[in-house]
Amino acid sequence: MRSGALDPEDALAALARLPFEDIGFANVDHHRALRQGLPEVIFGQGKTAEQVTAISRRLLAAGENVLVTRLEADIAARVTAEVPELSYHANSRTASAIVKQPPARANAQQVLVVTAGTSDQPVAEEALETLRVSGVPASLLFDVGVSGLHRLLARIETLRAASVLIVVAGMEGALPSVVGGLVAAPVIAVPTSVGYGAALAGFTALCGMLTSCASGVTVVNIDNGFGAAVAAIRMLHAAERGGS
Amino acid sequence: MRSGALDPEDALAALARLPFEDIGFANVDHHRALRQGLPEVIFGQGKTAEQVTAISRRLLAAGENVLVTRLEADIAARVTAEVPELSYHANSRTASAIVKQPPARANAQQVLVVTAGTSDQPVAEEALETLRVSGVPASLLFDVGVSGLHRLLARIETLRAASVLIVVAGMEGALPSVVGGLVAAPVIAVPTSVGYGAALAGFTALCGMLTSCASGVTVVNIDNGFGAAVAAIRMLHAAERGGS
Amino acid sequence: MRSGALDPEDALAALARLPFEDIGFANVDHHRALRQGLPEVIFGQGKTAEQVTAISRRLLAAGENVLVTRLEADIAARVTAEVPELSYHANSRTASAIVKQPPARANAQQVLVVTAGTSDQPVAEEALETLRVSGVPASLLFDVGVSGLHRLLARIETLRAASVLIVVAGMEGALPSVVGGLVAAPVIAVPTSVGYGAALAGFTALCGMLTSCASGVTVVNIDNGFGAAVAAIRMLHAAERGGS
Amino acid sequence: MRSGALDPEDALAALARLPFEDIGFANVDHHRALRQGLPEVIFGQGKTAEQVTAISRRLLAAGENVLVTRLEADIAARVTAEVPELSYHANSRTASAIVKQPPARANAQQVLVVTAGTSDQPVAEEALETLRVSGVPASLLFDVGVSGLHRLLARIETLRAASVLIVVAGMEGALPSVVGGLVAAPVIAVPTSVGYGAALAGFTALCGMLTSCASGVTVVNIDNGFGAAVAAIRMLHAAERGGS
Amino acid sequence: MRSGALDPEDALAALARLPFEDIGFANVDHHRALRQGLPEVIFGQGKTAEQVTAISRRLLAAGENVLVTRLEADIAARVTAEVPELSYHANSRTASAIVKQPPARANAQQVLVVTAGTSDQPVAEEALETLRVSGVPASLLFDVGVSGLHRLLARIETLRAASVLIVVAGMEGALPSVVGGLVAAPVIAVPTSVGYGAALAGFTALCGMLTSCASGVTVVNIDNGFGAAVAAIRMLHAAERGGS
Amino acid sequence: MRSGALDPEDALAALARLPFEDIGFANVDHHRALRQGLPEVIFGQGKTAEQVTAISRRLLAAGENVLVTRLEADIAARVTAEVPELSYHANSRTASAIVKQPPARANAQQVLVVTAGTSDQPVAEEALETLRVSGVPASLLFDVGVSGLHRLLARIETLRAASVLIVVAGMEGALPSVVGGLVAAPVIAVPTSVGYGAALAGFTALCGMLTSCASGVTVVNIDNGFGAAVAAIRMLHAAERGGS
Amino acid sequence: MRSGALDPEDALAALARLPFEDIGFANVDHHRALRQGLPEVIFGQGKTAEQVTAISRRLLAAGENVLVTRLEADIAARVTAEVPELSYHANSRTASAIVKQPPARANAQQVLVVTAGTSDQPVAEEALETLRVSGVPASLLFDVGVSGLHRLLARIETLRAASVLIVVAGMEGALPSVVGGLVAAPVIAVPTSVGYGAALAGFTALCGMLTSCASGVTVVNIDNGFGAAVAAIRMLHAAERGGS
Amino acid sequence: MRSGALDPEDALAALARLPFEDIGFANVDHHRALRQGLPEVIFGQGKTAEQVTAISRRLLAAGENVLVTRLEADIAARVTAEVPELSYHANSRTASAIVKQPPARANAQQVLVVTAGTSDQPVAEEALETLRVSGVPASLLFDVGVSGLHRLLARIETLRAASVLIVVAGMEGALPSVVGGLVAAPVIAVPTSVGYGAALAGFTALCGMLTSCASGVTVVNIDNGFGAAVAAIRMLHAAERGGS
Repeated sequence: MRSGALDPEDALAALARLPFEDIGFANVDHHRALRQGLPEVIFGQGKTAEQVTAISRRLLAAGENVLVTRLEADIAARVTAEVPELSYHANSRTASAIVKQPPARANAQQVLVVTAGTSDQPVAEEALETLRVSGVPASLLFDVGVSGLHRLLARIETLRAASVLIVVAGMEGALPSVVGGLVAAPVIAVPTSVGYGAALAGFTALCGMLTSCASGVTVVNIDNGFGAAVAAIRMLHAAERGGS
Repeated sequence: MRSGALDPEDALAALARLPFEDIGFANVDHHRALRQGLPEVIFGQGKTAEQVTAISRRLLAAGENVLVTRLEADIAARVTAEVPELSYHANSRTASAIVKQPPARANAQQVLVVTAGTSDQPVAEEALETLRVSGVPASLLFDVGVSGLHRLLARIETLRAASVLIVVAGMEGALPSVVGGLVAAPVIAVPTSVGYGAALAGFTALCGMLTSCASGVTVVNIDNGFGAAVAAIRMLHAAERGGS
Repeated sequence: MRSGALDPEDALAALARLPFEDIGFANVDHHRALRQGLPEVIFGQGKTAEQVTAISRRLLAAGENVLVTRLEADIAARVTAEVPELSYHANSRTASAIVKQPPARANAQQVLVVTAGTSDQPVAEEALETLRVSGVPASLLFDVGVSGLHRLLARIETLRAASVLIVVAGMEGALPSVVGGLVAAPVIAVPTSVGYGAALAGFTALCGMLTSCASGVTVVNIDNGFGAAVAAIRMLHAAERGGS
Repeated sequence: MRSGALDPEDALAALARLPFEDIGFANVDHHRALRQGLPEVIFGQGKTAEQVTAISRRLLAAGENVLVTRLEADIAARVTAEVPELSYHANSRTASAIVKQPPARANAQQVLVVTAGTSDQPVAEEALETLRVSGVPASLLFDVGVSGLHRLLARIETLRAASVLIVVAGMEGALPSVVGGLVAAPVIAVPTSVGYGAALAGFTALCGMLTSCASGVTVVNIDNGFGAAVAAIRMLHAAERGGS
Repeated sequence: MRSGALDPEDALAALARLPFEDIGFANVDHHRALRQGLPEVIFGQGKTAEQVTAISRRLLAAGENVLVTRLEADIAARVTAEVPELSYHANSRTASAIVKQPPARANAQQVLVVTAGTSDQPVAEEALETLRVSGVPASLLFDVGVSGLHRLLARIETLRAASVLIVVAGMEGALPSVVGGLVAAPVIAVPTSVGYGAALAGFTALCGMLTSCASGVTVVNIDNGFGAAVAAIRMLHAAERGGS
Repeated sequence: MRSGALDPEDALAALARLPFEDIGFANVDHHRALRQGLPEVIFGQGKTAEQVTAISRRLLAAGENVLVTRLEADIAARVTAEVPELSYHANSRTASAIVKQPPARANAQQVLVVTAGTSDQPVAEEALETLRVSGVPASLLFDVGVSGLHRLLARIETLRAASVLIVVAGMEGALPSVVGGLVAAPVIAVPTSVGYGAALAGFTALCGMLTSCASGVTVVNIDNGFGAAVAAIRMLHAAERGGS
Repeated sequence: MRSGALDPEDALAALARLPFEDIGFANVDHHRALRQGLPEVIFGQGKTAEQVTAISRRLLAAGENVLVTRLEADIAARVTAEVPELSYHANSRTASAIVKQPPARANAQQVLVVTAGTSDQPVAEEALETLRVSGVPASLLFDVGVSGLHRLLARIETLRAASVLIVVAGMEGALPSVVGGLVAAPVIAVPTSVGYGAALAGFTALCGMLTSCASGVTVVNIDNGFGAAVAAIRMLHAAERGGS
Repeated sequence: MRSGALDPEDALAALARLPFEDIGFANVDHHRALRQGLPEVIFGQGKTAEQVTAISRRLLAAGENVLVTRLEADIAARVTAEVPELSYHANSRTASAIVKQPPARANAQQVLVVTAGTSDQPVAEEALETLRVSGVPASLLFDVGVSGLHRLLARIETLRAASVLIVVAGMEGALPSVVGGLVAAPVIAVPTSVGYGAALAGFTALCGMLTSCASGVTVVNIDNGFGAAVAAIRMLHAAERGGS
């Protein structure tokens, strides 16, 4: 009676054979790199130093690269004391260890991270760190917000050279609309919590980006530089597959 | 004991002598034109045709110009049948009667109304009608939203020639930030309810304009073309006083 | 003193030479196809039949394909009576005219549109219509919401074969999280306004997708099938460029 | 004239004879265990150490078990110094004293607490502590969020063996929808405040769970592991009554 | 390396063999009754008459009972004309067809639906219809809101006799708190959209019920009588299993 | 032309002669006691110790009683060191000095302050302090929340003896609805910020009280024990006037 | 062990003997007039014409006055056709029948209803109708909003003569703050849904009134003229008791 | 084909020649003073002491005045140690250095800053500091909130003498409505975050000001004294141009 186009049992069997490791309080997923093109990433917020340490050790023991995001400085100090392979990057609140070189990528596949103001920098750096750990070439164009349009227009060729653009802005979040109108490449908009009052801790920028008058801009969560970088990697992955 | 710099009784006496007229359900304020530089305006929303008719008649009987805002077409039909002096303007949902010419103003004092898209037009027209009834020279620059920046930049001299700019935009409401960065004149931002979903019926544009990265942009209520025009008149009033 | 990496005047000169056409109430942008890879699209909401008709005629006169989105049936009837080249598609509330064939694309670049439930179909069809008008191969996988997981798992190979996935879901919007964990390709999540009460007219799905536990999912506005399709086209564009 | 099916005076008389004890700032309810099947529980938030100490002493003096919830570590230290019978459990922010053994329950009546991620653990432990103090057998299934579906599907038999499931998840809160589609038993969804930005301090998970596409999922307040446990106890109570 | 307690392949195989039927726009799930104890229910909102008709016919063809919820009167008229087995119940906006008798249940397992006011009745009736189609004995106690406490207290024995209580209330939604303090059985609170202004279309009642001072009350979506009934059925299912 | 029923100049003259004192950063209003029946009260939040000190001294110098509300302990310490007449009450965060006895009031005019739980006590005490400084007889009925109805019903005669009731409750804020149904006297509902998650920092209680099913309950701001007390004083003032 | 000050059984017995009448879908409370000083009022919103008719008939049969609020014109037509004793008042959306004269009240106990603008009139009339049916002397002061202060100040003696003031205002809701600073009597603030955009359907006025800088203003729900009138009656009741 | 009224290339060329300076993490815009009439202002929030120091030095090196806003005391201490030209003003949280005298302005162009209460003072001082650094004559009228109207009316002539008024108010934010009704000059309303509960951290004042019943009031972000001052400068600029 079922009209499924192919046999779900075979698909499920593949799914079921995926390995993970039960370490008493978490299930470490060693196969994600293979499945999604980037390593298991540890979301640091709400985890204890002990938990971050334990998961990091398992990943390193399996010969995998490690990236920890949203790691506060005091917890980072305790973790890096235990796991010296990890180095902490305070601006982006990330810690990372590269134990095997990520596969080389074509230079043409360049991600450009663009910020509206200096205060958006930490979010941009979380994206840049994630790209670096994943072996993706990336560069930064900073402080080109729309109230001083000449600063942006002076870099219009840089904008148009990028394969994927991550545009980071707080306050009214207008920059992705302007950039989205200038380029044909994918634009991933990242709202930041920069601003006060009507900035609504980033929700004004978030909603503004979602209702952008430039079509085809996509959006990630407030301050989510990591998520934007992973989205860019998914797009480059599609691009690489597309080229073959 | 009181240290008020001047005698409040004298000030209050002036205030108390201001005339108004009790017509049974409203207090018509015949002196507002003198006090604030524009006629008593009838806010049509939530009023019956009978109420709008009665207030209009009293104002006309006193030889004053009339402007009715937010007047739906069906109520307008009933009002204009009773008060033939009034003519209805469907796009802006206003009715007006000019029975005495407003005082001439210097041509240099030009208000420019700018819209991001065609859908913002009705709000712009409410502003233009209000300015017209008040005798203020004004013009319209339409459909220059930030996703097609070349359309705006082609008119940069028009922008810079205006004394006061009313910038009307829905969706993410980014246009006032860009315009505010291009001119030194006052920019009155009017958010519109154009858009859907994350546009939040105009609140995203409203909050975006309030938290604009271009300094000194001021904002009025959503879809409030009338209020923006009155604010512009207040500013021209200050300008005229300032010139003396 | 300025340290801009390249001469903004040259970049601006290119920008300034972009053509547009002033038709009295709108600035029609004939060059967008060249700039962004898809035709000028008319956002129907809030526009009169006369405005949609006039813009459509200009685009057709210039030999361009036309897509009108968010066009209600009553306005569509009046527009298509005037512009017989346009055909209306009620489910997706779009009208379109293809007068020149869009450039062929490699078959490998397949977009898969996935829906959680039957009520999400109209949004999916807006995406499919936009892709069709743009000449992008696309297919639909429907009614595979997460409360009946076996329906989704039965199609896991279809999911993994797609270059880009557009995942459409209302209510709690959980489907993109599950799909995002199963594939490495870009996942564009589209929240819909399906549901009531705590569904918050699509905002619960929207926020759920933004905070998805599957990394790298990007999101567009509620019910914005059009925007998701344009985002997918941007990604394919990057992919094509990436292959060279 | 009144048509009440039975005599309210009798019912009220029973109600009125319920004992409580006025201790000067609180009315301690010694009869709740009998009425609702679990002891008087002290909600620690907003109470001083002196107040928690006094109420605990009265309950212990009456020979009752004590559970204090939402008790911060610094206040707990002062309380346990005064009331040595109480032991503090930092992860769940609870203190408890079991002075009489709760009645044994059938082993078949197993509550399963399921978490989406490691950060949801403290809420799960509040539920587990409440169940432990009440003498209800319970176990924990951790870190089986929907972005790595194979981790959940590997435990499908564990899910189906439970009498009642408490499913704890933050971010988009999708796990109860998936679990609710896999089992026929009651699913109590507990949203957590894990996440940031669009996670809205737990409201996205809360609203997502309320509008779950899996029917018959019920929901408690954000981070309310205690309430979920009491709800489970109410259900087991019904089950026990039902079996007779 | 994986430490899953049992072999996920076996569990998945069972899952994968579950039948469903692709009817061109929906995947009809004939096995849900077996899996979850109630028939596939058609959520009418947002579906066309043609879609409801088609799904109903497939279910009836498979010999299953049918329940359609949130079905507006005009669509219901078109559906019942095509599918005469369905009878429409206007108050609860449901249509149903019982073609095979649901299994008998012990009379002791009584569900009591309680309403605060007359305006909450339609939501209560959606719950009662769902219970009726599922063969669960249920009764109604109406108009016993907390501002006239004597009406509630007169029925205290009725309250205490129920196995599961569904308590339906709009406005401030206080009734479940009072009922939850009077009984030890499970209380499923259903907020309704009755009220205006600060009632916030049901969200005040919803949030009030979630933060109820009576412990262990669980909540479903606003106006979701259907979901409350399914939750009650899940609880009775647990109770029946628990009794064996 | 004006039809004002009486000469506004006379009324304004009376208004204008009201004294106030400019102390360089505030205008101290020595006449409010006469105008509104209670002394000038200093809202401590957001004021520096120097400002509170200076205003207190002026009021004391004029022979008036002083009440400071929302005064944090650290600022209170600095203020009371400078102004020894003031004594600080930590629970209610108020400081006060009574230098002249407030006029005696009839004992029959009793205000009853009622709380739902122990955590609502500080708000109740702010009300009690305000009443005490104003010379109004008041008493407290604590911890009688609706989930243990017998505790409230045991005091029904106390409730009915009060002239005015101030009912203080957090969480779902149901207590004023129940009390409002039991008494004919004015009920002033005070929502508190007690609770978490869906309690929304007091807004759920606030909105619940505003939409109470007991008619004629009025509401003040969250945690505003002071405002509730002043409202009660206004009511007693009306009562006293009414009796003459 | 219990320390309740008086015997709850006696209090409960009195409560339990209160009569009500079960009419099949509602419990009509014939004793409320005695308990709360005003008749059972029928909340029309969400009730069918049949339900309003049936309850009205029972109340009339018992010789009681009837007031129906929030009754739409079409339902009113059907109800008054069945119950000719009821007369409908379209402006206030109320229907009423006075079959026995309410007890006379002292003339000194005057309620003054004040509105900010003409659009607030319907809410004021709901209050006036409620007062009229209850036999309370009341009068109206209209269109005295704060942007034309001279209109308000001209009536300052009228304001100060009232025992209780009901102040009705939409938009920013500033009028109660100004009135509250001018009088010592109780001020009941009623926010209205007049306005658009940032008026937030009355919530801006509601929140503004709750946080009024004039102390002791109390607030009822948006557009709730009825509730304000009942609150005023409760205050007059206290005043009358207070005078004895 | 393009109908742009003037040649965009010329306009763009002017725009492109605007200088800015890339200092490694920010693009310092030395030309803004010329373009907008005030110096480049450094938004201190979210910037490190190093960043503020570096930008300040570049501006001073270019001979420009400096204003830093939203600078916390601890960061200010580190910045002023490095850049002794800067002096810190704690009340307004600003630092400034005036190295060249701003151009003189006509004394008639007076800005009046008005506050409702003492707690609004810091926001007023941010405006006053900004005006001082820009060479604009300004004065302060404090503590004239609407609950004590006589304090405001005593200064009515001061209000009417101002060219532009900046009105600062928290809580319900009613003061701009009253002032806007008394003067014809531009009124810039600044909501503050003073208040609690329903004050919604300034949003109630913000929305109240946006929906003010006094026409033509414009609004800036919550606590944005700086933005209000810049808006006033834009208006004076228009006034000066207008006079020529």
